[in-house]
Amino acid sequence: MSDTTYARTERTTPTRYRDRATWEREAIHAILDSAYICHLGFMANGAPVVLPTIYARVGDRLYVHGSTGSRPLRGAGADQGMPVCVTVTLVDGLVLAKSAFNHSVNFRSVVAHGIAQQVTDPEELAVALDALVDHSVPGRSGDVRRPNAKELAATAVVRLVLDEVSAKTRDDGVDDDEADLELPYWAGVVPVSTVHGTPVPDASTTVPLPAYLRDFR
Amino acid sequence: MSDTTYARTERTTPTRYRDRATWEREAIHAILDSAYICHLGFMANGAPVVLPTIYARVGDRLYVHGSTGSRPLRGAGADQGMPVCVTVTLVDGLVLAKSAFNHSVNFRSVVAHGIAQQVTDPEELAVALDALVDHSVPGRSGDVRRPNAKELAATAVVRLVLDEVSAKTRDDGVDDDEADLELPYWAGVVPVSTVHGTPVPDASTTVPLPAYLRDFR
Repeated sequence: MSDTTYARTERTTPTRYRDRATWEREAIHAILDSAYICHLGFMANGAPVVLPTIYARVGDRLYVHGSTGSRPLRGAGADQGMPVCVTVTLVDGLVLAKSAFNHSVNFRSVVAHGIAQQVTDPEELAVALDALVDHSVPGRSGDVRRPNAKELAATAVVRLVLDEVSAKTRDDGVDDDEADLELPYWAGVVPVSTVHGTPVPDASTTVPLPAYLRDFR
Repeated sequence: MSDTTYARTERTTPTRYRDRATWEREAIHAILDSAYICHLGFMANGAPVVLPTIYARVGDRLYVHGSTGSRPLRGAGADQGMPVCVTVTLVDGLVLAKSAFNHSVNFRSVVAHGIAQQVTDPEELAVALDALVDHSVPGRSGDVRRPNAKELAATAVVRLVLDEVSAKTRDDGVDDDEADLELPYWAGVVPVSTVHGTPVPDASTTVPLPAYLRDFR
């Protein structure tokens, strides 16, 4: 891996639409920092399992957490770690072509492969848990009660080092066949985005909306 | 499986938050019909792979499609099919508690396990391809040039019968510990939703915006 680009491997080199792929660290990190959840893939009894879960990135490390009793986190606690695939996807638009075949989706996605390992170092654990809170709402970890010993004992955090990772992006208009261009169908792009509504305070809340939520988008 | 509920199995029974799970057909179908993409998990060379892809539901069948040359679709073309896990997730809110530990996410997700099989029957293939176009934009398949023989030959469609499937939902406020309620932090829910922007016509488009896109939300 160079300073700016992750190394390509066979499984991070797509078989199709190779021009949509990138291994650039900055582009990959930007996508990882933009989604709320990842999809964590692992194997259980010889079959694939894909679960949605929150995550956070700290430098070249991805963190996922859960109960110490949960299946994937138990697997990652083993000495040899656990093979995983972590995928993050954002949908940006529906691309409606004149032919069914050329319909597409504008999207940004990251796929990371590797061996997940349980975090045991208390300092790394504290950094990861703060990052998991800050991932969706930057600044939040400084405005909460941090985990106590009992909560720490109930929480398992797993680390995946970003190494074998790539991004794929489609951000373009309609790509119809020349022969279809005059067909009398509507073609174009329907933008899709994720938005936040007005924060709804819990009945126990006695303080005003913090700055990090006022400017939140 | 009864008429209204999918049968529970060990892997569709969560180890935690069991009250958030459901096996009800109607609830599961509603979630499947609300997202644009699924995350398809399969195994390649002994390791899990998770790829985002569009999909469609027709009754109790999920369809995923891709190039005939793509890795997962080649796997599903084998006689014995391919073990997969298909997961669909919608994020509805960020739940900010007074403790870091009780932070959560409001979400709806479906996880389906099974053996994916390639669709070879031409009639089923045609239904599946229409459904894939209609999934994101209902009504669209009647307003496009449908696939020709060459396009059909280049497209592989894979079927996963919904059988071992469950949904999980969190749709609730903050659940803080009693002892934390008086802490001077803001607690509450930030709603999250997916919205469509104004459709942007391609330069080749000569017809007005169709009704199914005017009322699109």
